[in-house]
Amino acid sequence: MRIDNLQYANWSETIFRQLREGNVDAIHVTIAYHENFRETVLNIEQWNRWFEQYPDLITHGRVAADIDRAIEAGQTAVFFGFQNPSPIEDDIGLVEIVHTLGARFMQLTYNNQSLLATGCYESEDTGITRMGRQVIAEMNRVGLVVDMSHSADRSTIEAADLSTRPIAITHANPAVWAPARRNKSDDVIRAVTQNGGMLGFSLYPHHLLGKTECTLQSFCQMIADTADRFGIEHLGLGSDLCQDQPDSVVEWMRVGRWSKTIDYGEGSASAAGFPPMPDWFVDNRDFGNIERGLGEVGMNAAEIAAIMGGNWYRFYTESFTAP
Amino acid sequence: MRIDNLQYANWSETIFRQLREGNVDAIHVTIAYHENFRETVLNIEQWNRWFEQYPDLITHGRVAADIDRAIEAGQTAVFFGFQNPSPIEDDIGLVEIVHTLGARFMQLTYNNQSLLATGCYESEDTGITRMGRQVIAEMNRVGLVVDMSHSADRSTIEAADLSTRPIAITHANPAVWAPARRNKSDDVIRAVTQNGGMLGFSLYPHHLLGKTECTLQSFCQMIADTADRFGIEHLGLGSDLCQDQPDSVVEWMRVGRWSKTIDYGEGSASAAGFPPMPDWFVDNRDFGNIERGLGEVGMNAAEIAAIMGGNWYRFYTESFTAP
Repeated sequence: MRIDNLQYANWSETIFRQLREGNVDAIHVTIAYHENFRETVLNIEQWNRWFEQYPDLITHGRVAADIDRAIEAGQTAVFFGFQNPSPIEDDIGLVEIVHTLGARFMQLTYNNQSLLATGCYESEDTGITRMGRQVIAEMNRVGLVVDMSHSADRSTIEAADLSTRPIAITHANPAVWAPARRNKSDDVIRAVTQNGGMLGFSLYPHHLLGKTECTLQSFCQMIADTADRFGIEHLGLGSDLCQDQPDSVVEWMRVGRWSKTIDYGEGSASAAGFPPMPDWFVDNRDFGNIERGLGEVGMNAAEIAAIMGGNWYRFYTESFTAP
Repeated sequence: MRIDNLQYANWSETIFRQLREGNVDAIHVTIAYHENFRETVLNIEQWNRWFEQYPDLITHGRVAADIDRAIEAGQTAVFFGFQNPSPIEDDIGLVEIVHTLGARFMQLTYNNQSLLATGCYESEDTGITRMGRQVIAEMNRVGLVVDMSHSADRSTIEAADLSTRPIAITHANPAVWAPARRNKSDDVIRAVTQNGGMLGFSLYPHHLLGKTECTLQSFCQMIADTADRFGIEHLGLGSDLCQDQPDSVVEWMRVGRWSKTIDYGEGSASAAGFPPMPDWFVDNRDFGNIERGLGEVGMNAAEIAAIMGGNWYRFYTESFTAP
């Protein structure tokens, strides 16, 4: 089973067909970066159209069992998530509403301070806010996973401890391997995993050792080392694949509507756009390379299966509840 | 089994307890008169809170089988509906969204011309609009029932014919019994029922012969006569009970935000508020009176059971699909 727990492609029939060619059984897709509730609903409407148009390729995933159904039918199950709590605005009642509409992951912050927690680009991290505590409890109640990929360390550790259900870092790597603002310290990874949570390894070049030049061997050895240190059952993939997106999209991700000036995030003035992907992971047909790479660093078949999708499948089973 | 297919009470624990005392197994509740999408979502949030607060009394109904589950648990299953298409605004994609959020009935108009059809208070009825045809097809696709209670005759007959699934008049009576703008001609009732649709008998005094003074015997004889003429399998109750609502609410129903001046609808300047209910149907504990009255006009047990809920249950089974 292959599950990629974070993608934000410029979706098209071409990409849906590549998902099938790559035997990707499920993906968690970002459907909101800075969108408010009504804008997020428009994005769900767009996905509803795609589900109608491409029933032979994709299906809406709501619970883990939908992946079994998708495998049976030769489809990819698509689960929705937000990289920001902007879709719930300032209204805790929207947590249940977005869950009913299919949301299964929600980041409490995207780089900046939010109403709920502190993002990883703020200079001060004040932890989970008053509203944040209420929203985590509500997310736990309805079965919407807390995702802290873009959050600051203290906020993340507090969220892992406050949440009564395991949380996730859907797309990041250990900072000990590749120091980067978005990669995670050992303390953060420990807090998430020791509470039953998951870490999804990112293939976004800014999160890789050597960026675009990162080797498959280095990436896979990092996975093996992380498994040795934190337990293989807590690890999966969250590629952060942004296939076919124009550079205007990475600017939207970084700046949204919160600033009138440019913010380069992990990029720079001279490299403002999406960085090129490593040549061994360009699109959804390349998961076989990672599977092979994991074998070459000594993982056995059961371990490889756990990383490639088995662990996310178990986590989905425990985390998602039907409305 | 008792199903009341239209209520718009000022909901409270008192009324939820009366539903249980009256053995009402399911109700279809109006959750929007003139609300736009975002306002409708706020109303759903309020129902979500009630479902959390009173789990021993009520439960959210999505499919007919939820009524069986409610009976087992001693709850009343609550199904959502709109008396106006305002919640979908001008966006056909919202049809599937509101269905996912639980909407199961939607009127194409509320008295006035809408984007979809003509209401019963307009002087000209131009039938189903271009958008109306698209929306009926989409409602058929997702399993959202077309309700024409407040629509004009031509629009209603066209909707009954265009719809590939049976439609409903959830709350109105035959005009032949009580002439009133909101009651329905034989032609309209025939168009709806011969296409498999349902008529729910209203207990709103403006729809009754003699209004508040209407007798139980007259109401029940009218039901028996309608069964003889159009087939008992197409008939149920849609009481239009607006219990404990202040008169400001009937003004909201009639005027919404579409007029700066008052419109008395079925009322008048001297009787602008809610009319008093007949003494044999004041609240949800009074369904036993109707059951008794139907027996007194000669209906047998199977016929009474069909009217009191069996027919709506069958219609729910055929009309509602899970998202």
